[in-house]
Amino acid sequence: MATLGANQWGKSEVRISKVLRGDDNDEFLDLTVQILLSGDVELAFVEGNNSAVLPTDTTKNTVYGLAQEHLSTDLEAFAAVLGQHFVARAGIESATIAVKQTRWQRLGPTGFLGGGSEGRTTRVVTSSSGPAFTSGIEGLVVLKTTGSAFVGFPRDEFTVLPEAEDRLLATSVTADWVYPVLPEDTTATWDRVRQLMVDHFFDDWSASVQHQGWTMAEAVFDSVAEISEITFHLPNQHHLAVDLTRFGLPNDGTVFQPVSQPYGDIRFTAHR
Amino acid sequence: MATLGANQWGKSEVRISKVLRGDDNDEFLDLTVQILLSGDVELAFVEGNNSAVLPTDTTKNTVYGLAQEHLSTDLEAFAAVLGQHFVARAGIESATIAVKQTRWQRLGPTGFLGGGSEGRTTRVVTSSSGPAFTSGIEGLVVLKTTGSAFVGFPRDEFTVLPEAEDRLLATSVTADWVYPVLPEDTTATWDRVRQLMVDHFFDDWSASVQHQGWTMAEAVFDSVAEISEITFHLPNQHHLAVDLTRFGLPNDGTVFQPVSQPYGDIRFTAHR
Amino acid sequence: MATLGANQWGKSEVRISKVLRGDDNDEFLDLTVQILLSGDVELAFVEGNNSAVLPTDTTKNTVYGLAQEHLSTDLEAFAAVLGQHFVARAGIESATIAVKQTRWQRLGPTGFLGGGSEGRTTRVVTSSSGPAFTSGIEGLVVLKTTGSAFVGFPRDEFTVLPEAEDRLLATSVTADWVYPVLPEDTTATWDRVRQLMVDHFFDDWSASVQHQGWTMAEAVFDSVAEISEITFHLPNQHHLAVDLTRFGLPNDGTVFQPVSQPYGDIRFTAHR
Amino acid sequence: MATLGANQWGKSEVRISKVLRGDDNDEFLDLTVQILLSGDVELAFVEGNNSAVLPTDTTKNTVYGLAQEHLSTDLEAFAAVLGQHFVARAGIESATIAVKQTRWQRLGPTGFLGGGSEGRTTRVVTSSSGPAFTSGIEGLVVLKTTGSAFVGFPRDEFTVLPEAEDRLLATSVTADWVYPVLPEDTTATWDRVRQLMVDHFFDDWSASVQHQGWTMAEAVFDSVAEISEITFHLPNQHHLAVDLTRFGLPNDGTVFQPVSQPYGDIRFTAHR
Repeated sequence: MATLGANQWGKSEVRISKVLRGDDNDEFLDLTVQILLSGDVELAFVEGNNSAVLPTDTTKNTVYGLAQEHLSTDLEAFAAVLGQHFVARAGIESATIAVKQTRWQRLGPTGFLGGGSEGRTTRVVTSSSGPAFTSGIEGLVVLKTTGSAFVGFPRDEFTVLPEAEDRLLATSVTADWVYPVLPEDTTATWDRVRQLMVDHFFDDWSASVQHQGWTMAEAVFDSVAEISEITFHLPNQHHLAVDLTRFGLPNDGTVFQPVSQPYGDIRFTAHR
Repeated sequence: MATLGANQWGKSEVRISKVLRGDDNDEFLDLTVQILLSGDVELAFVEGNNSAVLPTDTTKNTVYGLAQEHLSTDLEAFAAVLGQHFVARAGIESATIAVKQTRWQRLGPTGFLGGGSEGRTTRVVTSSSGPAFTSGIEGLVVLKTTGSAFVGFPRDEFTVLPEAEDRLLATSVTADWVYPVLPEDTTATWDRVRQLMVDHFFDDWSASVQHQGWTMAEAVFDSVAEISEITFHLPNQHHLAVDLTRFGLPNDGTVFQPVSQPYGDIRFTAHR
Repeated sequence: MATLGANQWGKSEVRISKVLRGDDNDEFLDLTVQILLSGDVELAFVEGNNSAVLPTDTTKNTVYGLAQEHLSTDLEAFAAVLGQHFVARAGIESATIAVKQTRWQRLGPTGFLGGGSEGRTTRVVTSSSGPAFTSGIEGLVVLKTTGSAFVGFPRDEFTVLPEAEDRLLATSVTADWVYPVLPEDTTATWDRVRQLMVDHFFDDWSASVQHQGWTMAEAVFDSVAEISEITFHLPNQHHLAVDLTRFGLPNDGTVFQPVSQPYGDIRFTAHR
Repeated sequence: MATLGANQWGKSEVRISKVLRGDDNDEFLDLTVQILLSGDVELAFVEGNNSAVLPTDTTKNTVYGLAQEHLSTDLEAFAAVLGQHFVARAGIESATIAVKQTRWQRLGPTGFLGGGSEGRTTRVVTSSSGPAFTSGIEGLVVLKTTGSAFVGFPRDEFTVLPEAEDRLLATSVTADWVYPVLPEDTTATWDRVRQLMVDHFFDDWSASVQHQGWTMAEAVFDSVAEISEITFHLPNQHHLAVDLTRFGLPNDGTVFQPVSQPYGDIRFTAHR
């Protein structure tokens, strides 16, 4: 015979992002939350009686539901609100809430630069006819809380996406460009290309990822004479609006679920 | 001025699983699909006109929508159906469909063993009082297409989960057990524990992950005298039913979206 | 003022593999080991006095050094030997040894199939001229403890690799093949191709990864008429022989360090 | 019969770091290099004749060997030097060199901040007695090119590590601290703790990872009254000096191989 000892249940890796709209600047929070409850649930183990087992799906929904009102940069306060919500229920004795905030660096009033594995790249193919240079950037993670739309697209029987006049847009830029002749200072040129991409992602309004990429490509051609061709890979890193009306709450349009799979996949080459 | 070259758009890492119900045996398919379209979308880039840009969200929905009728073990046929569906639309010139099927090994009529990083573990703490042994397993990925329920749970304002009289259940078993005295043949004992876990996951009906784990713990205690305590970590690896009625289709209950984040997190210790 | 509490030091993710040569069959062990020591090392923290801090590099070397004599399938015994070795030293009060054995499945007397993410793949490009099919396999991890050599290669000032008349060979097969016309049963054909690859990896002696891949390609062409072209990617997943003579021990040729970075990178296309 | 088509061989994921010593500031380069050669190697495939197959191990060594003299921030120039070196050999027709530079941000003359997944964390356990707060940081990647030593450690039969009067030191700081009472502004307090850690990692000379961590812990206690206890996890992210004398070159002490496995594992708790 077995005797039940310590046990917990809940949800791990709940992804949530929130935009804190400001008069001049937006804040952007990107969190991963874990909820682990404990209480008197021995009957669930031994008899399959779930009457005390708050579903883990509910614990996840609670994070989204309470975030709209209670989530600010004070993570400790938000975690305490969540914990108090759960232990106020009959049958739940303790709640452990773990939060990790992934840091983004502010770049302008509504723009943010993500962390990660940003890198400078080059690929050089050398043969008897000499070297051929393709250089690039990868892992340049950028997000803006406004300044992007997606409307006017065709609809069919599988289309349920609503039109968005203004949306949060995030991507991880990978780009490779051809240098027919190498610039004198490859590092300075790379820095310049990177800055152009950042500036035009944040400053230019776009009607789609494709449109956003195009403004970046044109800016590079306008300013960097050494580049003859550029290829972009722009995954659309979705932040899905969470529908809080299912919980009897209004949708303020501030609470999102970031999803890593699947992602919109946009690729193109531009040349002079 | 920039000129548009080759370009593609679509969705990557679309996760889909499907149960092919059989009279005697079920089949289980676990796929990751990529859709990349090309067509006449220059206006989207240059002018922000999306009238030819089928949303990437639609391409994802199409995978789920067509899977119910067309997805079998013949991956090539399914990919061709998807490709033909897309190129039949005005404005789409070619469709590249890439499919990866992750392999599961059949273990019984409705049970499957996943691949991955299954491992045997041990942790030995040695001090002046001698060694203390905790051994275990990790990454034992198991899935069954029937034989698990989740009903009778409490509901609150954040509970939208429907009751499930029968559901697909998948987890990656991590377990650690204490050997007060080491068995003579640690390898044979480990093999026996693993087999007990596999057998009782597949053969015992369960009312919850907790209940399923309990049958596994009890079986170990019943059969392996050397073990005094066992701790389980059983993430609920969700396969969400896709609601096809949004596309005017019936829900046959065979098409799922596997999600890696978040996961239900169930942990417990049992002792004699 | 700060006071030191609990503390540990050691090495994590020490990778070690060992071949247990047998008369009829070899065994192959693939382990990841962690060593965490504790003892009286307060002076190291407070005064920078390292006289009691056994280097973490030494703890790693000890794993390799003791493995030759003491490592068998009884992981608990090996961990206890390691622990006793460390606590026998003055100043070390306890040693925690954690071991994870990654499971490989035996395929023949000297061949093993690794776990992981083995998958069946297909890529179908559909345009107005109809679909074009490329199918494949990825993540087929195979290892043999004998039956591969690498000798007779050119040497230059950067070449220090010794010639190997017989070596352990491991790879993760990725292959893609072209079907000009689709076979009637794509699943049966895929199974057949996979089996041919497995058989010829294990049964055919090879002079290099290239040579090994070639025998696999030829076998596919010989037996599967529907395939006109096949491309292989065969990373050489190195298991480096550990030089135990540095520790005053003989080299029995059984203890290896698996390394994930870098890897030998072999790619080729074969056509009829 | 099979006919050989396109093929390449070489090494992928060659990790290399280099310190460019300066009068006032050091530069630090962190690269991942891929070398893929092609040439007349049909006999290797068909007959197992390796006379034209430069070992992939040699291609890796060449990266280290040529880096000492030729690697600067001009990645394109270094890749071209590598490519020309290989194609100058008989039998090699083309060389593709791909380089990714992972970006580090300068923090002071010899200090650098890595990218990655830096995060702010908190863990709040709520029970009937109210909430208990532990907050922290993870993924704070820091590296300094000087200002750390490791000497005076005990030696045994498995110790081959040389003493280092000055060495490159890199870690990814994870720390968790206890707030008996929550500070008024948790965000400002977190920012302050992070800055103290960064400052004392870069500004304080250390005799070991333990010693370095201790200066960070003491600084936190000195300046942040709300914290009663702090636990550090400080993996030693090794950059191994590459021995170039094997290639007939002097060791300038600037070329390193970063290794991700294994890592030195240092953990401790400090309290007031």
